[in-house]
Amino acid sequence: MKSPIAIAIHGGAGTLTKALITPEMELKYTTALEEAVKIGYAVLSSGGNAVDAVAASVVSLEDCPLFNAGKGAVFNAVGKHEMDASIMDGSNLKAGAVALVKGVRNPVLLAKEIMQHSEHVFLAGEGAEEFARAHGLSFEDAAYFYNALRYEQWQTLKDSDTFSLDHSVEVTDKKFGTVGAVALDNLGNLAAATSTGGMTNKKFGRIGDSPVIGAGTYAANESCAISCTGHGELFIRSVVAYDIACLMTYKGLSLKQACDVVVHDKLVKIEGEGGLVALDAKGNIEMPFNSEGMYRASIDMKGTLFSAIYK
Amino acid sequence: MKSPIAIAIHGGAGTLTKALITPEMELKYTTALEEAVKIGYAVLSSGGNAVDAVAASVVSLEDCPLFNAGKGAVFNAVGKHEMDASIMDGSNLKAGAVALVKGVRNPVLLAKEIMQHSEHVFLAGEGAEEFARAHGLSFEDAAYFYNALRYEQWQTLKDSDTFSLDHSVEVTDKKFGTVGAVALDNLGNLAAATSTGGMTNKKFGRIGDSPVIGAGTYAANESCAISCTGHGELFIRSVVAYDIACLMTYKGLSLKQACDVVVHDKLVKIEGEGGLVALDAKGNIEMPFNSEGMYRASIDMKGTLFSAIYK
Repeated sequence: MKSPIAIAIHGGAGTLTKALITPEMELKYTTALEEAVKIGYAVLSSGGNAVDAVAASVVSLEDCPLFNAGKGAVFNAVGKHEMDASIMDGSNLKAGAVALVKGVRNPVLLAKEIMQHSEHVFLAGEGAEEFARAHGLSFEDAAYFYNALRYEQWQTLKDSDTFSLDHSVEVTDKKFGTVGAVALDNLGNLAAATSTGGMTNKKFGRIGDSPVIGAGTYAANESCAISCTGHGELFIRSVVAYDIACLMTYKGLSLKQACDVVVHDKLVKIEGEGGLVALDAKGNIEMPFNSEGMYRASIDMKGTLFSAIYK
Repeated sequence: MKSPIAIAIHGGAGTLTKALITPEMELKYTTALEEAVKIGYAVLSSGGNAVDAVAASVVSLEDCPLFNAGKGAVFNAVGKHEMDASIMDGSNLKAGAVALVKGVRNPVLLAKEIMQHSEHVFLAGEGAEEFARAHGLSFEDAAYFYNALRYEQWQTLKDSDTFSLDHSVEVTDKKFGTVGAVALDNLGNLAAATSTGGMTNKKFGRIGDSPVIGAGTYAANESCAISCTGHGELFIRSVVAYDIACLMTYKGLSLKQACDVVVHDKLVKIEGEGGLVALDAKGNIEMPFNSEGMYRASIDMKGTLFSAIYK
């Protein structure tokens, strides 16, 4: 029997509310999601590894202005784009993470470079940008990251103490803009990656769960690959991604059971809104969320393409 | 029966090698450790809570030039002191963390302020310093952080691509300078805190495990409180602190068994040198390390004071 390959991605649990989305917008999002998941799947189906597959899908999502990562990153309190990302290789538990970088076109590729070509795991700020330049990563100017909708979102919040996590123009909503991917390659290796622009109008160098290994991202062949999206502070406190891995490894739960416990029970109890994409070494895919929606897509072991926004 | 109180602290697994330490130096270190553990214990014995106790002990260690945190923080690649810290309250799983802050006298108090008086968990860099100023935290100038030994360590590494994690002047050694504390108060609440100056000559805004909730610091009343010290990159990849908690909660291991698995088996296999202090809600203390030594001290349920550097 051929070894299974599979991939699942998300574009954030911070969806536009169902009541507000137009059919045209919905189509735009699902088209972008399907394109991104196919790009990662193409890596896998041509014999590429899981790390390259998740990086390729996340790059596609970072390059798309619809999602809060890379090109589509939201404005922070001083009108800049500060981005976080991480990646983990389930075959050797190597990881790379980056926080609060500006100007880097694809933060996930910087995380991958840190993982593969440095002694470090986690770099941040100007130092991380210096590392990116030294390693030849692509940079873009402010015009590249400018987006009229994001600018409008920021203008609504600017000069206030409010911040917003989302896609929504409804600033009272708490929404979570992040992108991520998990993949299983034909050698049975898992990988996970996550990337985000954080919260609109964020201050104080706030870091969410996306670059935190164990919280926003985790991968180990013996358990699962996880990429999260949600209220970052609560995901950090709950060590969400590694919690799912531990429920499988130490308690013997299936991927689905572990996801249910964490997303629909533990996170709900602390009002930790959000979701995640998950994959185990057998190729089982789970994409649970406790928010109204989560932009998501997958191609399973049978090659079946799936994409959705709401429940 | 009176509820047990207990506390354990560490001053890093990056000890001077036993062959090099003088009896005078050894006495200096154990005296400072005993002073710091007594300060936290005094908080507990007067009815104070575990969060205040770990913060008090860590402040004492940060204010002591012997340890790589606060006043004793090492020099980074550009001759500055960039510090990381975190704290977690086991009673409610609230947490605060700070990375790459300069000039803040007591990074652990900044982490505590973030935990108790913000919507955030993790702040970094200049943004975190801005938050610190807005919340009235104490700042110190470069003279306060200057230390002849640290300067000499930096001069040895400066203009090289080498970095060092430690207390040692032997730059070829990999040593890990960090301080931390875990405490159990008379209400049965656990807390943990960690603080570090990182690696001598560190570049690129490198962040280790100290400010990463789940890796360097974790506390939950139902399992344990943990503060780590060691090769941060490997501790992040291993999600060390939360791994011990999960082995207890999901697999039913005792604190000692869980510490043994993680420190003496899993970390050893990946050459993850270091150690940790651990405490459970029954007041059991563990202080395992796989390095040559770990500066450590504790006061147990019976009120017995212990301090040591080597095995």
